[in-house]
Amino acid sequence: MKKLINNPQNVVAESLRGFGLAHPEHVRVNEDPLFVSRAGGAVQGKVGLVSGGGSGHEPLHAGYVGVGMLDAAVPGPMFTSPTPEPILEATKAADGGAGVLHIVKNYTGDVLNFETAAELAEAEDITVKAVIVNDDVAVEDSLYTAGRRGVAGTVLVEKIAGAAAERGDDLDAVAAVAQKVIDNVRSMGVALSACTVPHAGKPSFDLEEDEIEIGIGIHGEPGRHRIAMADADEITERLLTPVLEDLKVSDGEEVLLFVNGMGGTPLSELYVVYNHARDLLDQRGLKVTRSLVGNYITSLEMQGASVTVLRLDADLTALWDAPVDTPALRRGL
Amino acid sequence: MKKLINNPQNVVAESLRGFGLAHPEHVRVNEDPLFVSRAGGAVQGKVGLVSGGGSGHEPLHAGYVGVGMLDAAVPGPMFTSPTPEPILEATKAADGGAGVLHIVKNYTGDVLNFETAAELAEAEDITVKAVIVNDDVAVEDSLYTAGRRGVAGTVLVEKIAGAAAERGDDLDAVAAVAQKVIDNVRSMGVALSACTVPHAGKPSFDLEEDEIEIGIGIHGEPGRHRIAMADADEITERLLTPVLEDLKVSDGEEVLLFVNGMGGTPLSELYVVYNHARDLLDQRGLKVTRSLVGNYITSLEMQGASVTVLRLDADLTALWDAPVDTPALRRGL
Repeated sequence: MKKLINNPQNVVAESLRGFGLAHPEHVRVNEDPLFVSRAGGAVQGKVGLVSGGGSGHEPLHAGYVGVGMLDAAVPGPMFTSPTPEPILEATKAADGGAGVLHIVKNYTGDVLNFETAAELAEAEDITVKAVIVNDDVAVEDSLYTAGRRGVAGTVLVEKIAGAAAERGDDLDAVAAVAQKVIDNVRSMGVALSACTVPHAGKPSFDLEEDEIEIGIGIHGEPGRHRIAMADADEITERLLTPVLEDLKVSDGEEVLLFVNGMGGTPLSELYVVYNHARDLLDQRGLKVTRSLVGNYITSLEMQGASVTVLRLDADLTALWDAPVDTPALRRGL
Repeated sequence: MKKLINNPQNVVAESLRGFGLAHPEHVRVNEDPLFVSRAGGAVQGKVGLVSGGGSGHEPLHAGYVGVGMLDAAVPGPMFTSPTPEPILEATKAADGGAGVLHIVKNYTGDVLNFETAAELAEAEDITVKAVIVNDDVAVEDSLYTAGRRGVAGTVLVEKIAGAAAERGDDLDAVAAVAQKVIDNVRSMGVALSACTVPHAGKPSFDLEEDEIEIGIGIHGEPGRHRIAMADADEITERLLTPVLEDLKVSDGEEVLLFVNGMGGTPLSELYVVYNHARDLLDQRGLKVTRSLVGNYITSLEMQGASVTVLRLDADLTALWDAPVDTPALRRGL
């Protein structure tokens, strides 16, 4: 294992300390318990947004703390859910008196710990609602998950719900916008290589030299099937087709196309995937009116990518276009 | 070789087609000859900025075309200089009547081909000046290079000179600002793994399982020495110390600290490097007033990082802070 780390047990803490030092205009890092909140603190009268989950998916979630997106993020240990205590403290830090929305990826540990934290927060008179992101069409009931996994769609939920909160929507309305994104977004990913969790010291799964895994999870959970290495166009079609079938898109609809890198794949390859996905969407009569390409939710140094499609309407488009100013996503500010 | 590509010969063309489709608000991709220019065309009366070089370093340079940075970028084949013809056409596309600055990384092919293109542009009555970026302190006279190589400092030159052009500086003044950045920026990198150029099909060099290369070039050119794998703090010190010695910084000076990923290293590890670099700079009495952390100039899927320090003054800081709106770098717009 060759990594730019010191003691494997300290990677998350050291990394977040560096993150806080690099982005003082955006975030404040609380070391104990460990969570990240906006540099300016909670915004009075605004719904607070909190997300979190195991580390190793950077820039998710801490990279999305800032104006127009999250109010706080709770990074757990690598690929491991944070406990209720830091989630509770992050919820308190995000509360501006208008309630807090928890955006939770559908993994059993995350769901349970966010639920417990929400109960504790309610006991302190903070109103909490939660949405569960489960956009991965690859498999049901995966490792760590009952139902579908939450993957790249989470970035879109955080951006769009964050914009709704910023414009002054109340808690029910922000939760409804987040749920609307969840209802209209689907993803599927591929791994060309595994990744290595620092404290494990060896790859989280094995792939043969000429083998790839279609439908991989962001922790390396098994996907739909392993196939021999194929060209990018074929892989893109194998990811996009189930996404579109599940989303039941119709001719003429407007969509956002998001090609996400797993961390170890060059940006040039992500655009090769995007290029063919565009052709496939064109052929189906869909209009790609918004796009996102890059490493936005990763699996450490895993080589691979995911394809996400979000069905848009005028309101979701406007919220997507709204200003955002975070360490990892900035636009229009 | 497992990559998300089709025919290895078509990676650059397909990738740039996808790039153009994904970012229509920022760029226009000209397919033959291949170059990228601003979606809105040249800005009349503004100095035009053009950079370019071999592909494989994305988002450099095409990702930096847009308001506040480049007017055009010329991507060559993978790790191979573009020929004079596309550089000439990009220069013409960037010309708003106030002259054009070529920002050239110091590789023999790039320098020669940009020089030839500049002569051809002058013959068409476009005034061209050029600056040569050579910030890599690792070695002199490397593979492909007489003198020092141009590496991560190029991103800072493009951002800061771009801001100078945007505020209305004339060609001499923009060139002077670019040169000032070059005079005050130094970098050094490390490779934990090699990368594979698609049409070559095998890694560009070999590293043993427990070996890393200090002072690596962005094409995998040999560095200063190979050492056994070390922890992040030691590696960071081995990169930062020669940078600071060469830059001859003094106690109390303000600097920008840039930790760049080579493409295959998780963002969390880049922040671990940043974290220790901050401590080392603090110990030397330097003030880090601006920061950049991420994959801004890469070497395909190489695992590794580079550390760059830029000495700041009030003008450079203001130009760094100026709005920028490109596919890969956005701030304040």
